[in-house]
Amino acid sequence: MDRIPILKIGQVLLVSIQIDLQDQSVLALQEDLAEQISATGAHGVIIDISAVEIVDSFIGRMFATIAATSRLFDADTVVVGMRPAVAITLVELGLTLGQVRTALNLEKGLAILGKLAAERELAEGLDDLDEPVQANS
Amino acid sequence: MDRIPILKIGQVLLVSIQIDLQDQSVLALQEDLAEQISATGAHGVIIDISAVEIVDSFIGRMFATIAATSRLFDADTVVVGMRPAVAITLVELGLTLGQVRTALNLEKGLAILGKLAAERELAEGLDDLDEPVQANS
Repeated sequence: MDRIPILKIGQVLLVSIQIDLQDQSVLALQEDLAEQISATGAHGVIIDISAVEIVDSFIGRMFATIAATSRLFDADTVVVGMRPAVAITLVELGLTLGQVRTALNLEKGLAILGKLAAERELAEGLDDLDEPVQANS
Repeated sequence: MDRIPILKIGQVLLVSIQIDLQDQSVLALQEDLAEQISATGAHGVIIDISAVEIVDSFIGRMFATIAATSRLFDADTVVVGMRPAVAITLVELGLTLGQVRTALNLEKGLAILGKLAAERELAEGLDDLDEPVQANS
């Protein structure tokens, strides 16, 4: 059981972190996630850390790496379920999560990703509308 | 990290099993689940076992116990993501999962629970319609 399972809910991939993360399992997770996003065309990734009691700069960097990789596949990343003690530690360590959004729980994370996806579709629709106008001018 | 986190998606609770289950963590999970169903009024429980490689009669019994407890709160249980090797082992061990439904993956499990919830609401609606008729006869 050394690989963290990736679940799919509609266009969103869900990762629930329950084990103490070792270098090896983090690398495996990043690989698996990139493969899954590419294979499914998911528009979002949710990382649930409600079981995580201790964070360090290593885990903080993992979030940033996953978010940066997902971005390359046009997917957003939301970290959900952070414990209060973990949030305080992150601030005390001076760790920023980079491009990673956070939400209180899974449902709010799904809502954020749904909104981002809708905004993106709207923006793409507007781009399509713009093109013929530019061609005429 | 000895407690397995319980996630909530709408009216469904999601448990993703990633660690080797010990007696203690199984008991804690059953307690937590009963409390969460009672607190949230969830109509379904999904247990994802895509990370589980080995099953024995102990785990089989756990599914049955969780399903029976959930039933008492009027919630259905679906086990999803079973590996082929696990399915073969369950059959070879002669283990039936009792009242537990199974589905290929999380999305199919959510679909089953949604359908069951809709059927139940319909049945409750019909019951309400029946009552005045019986009163008049």
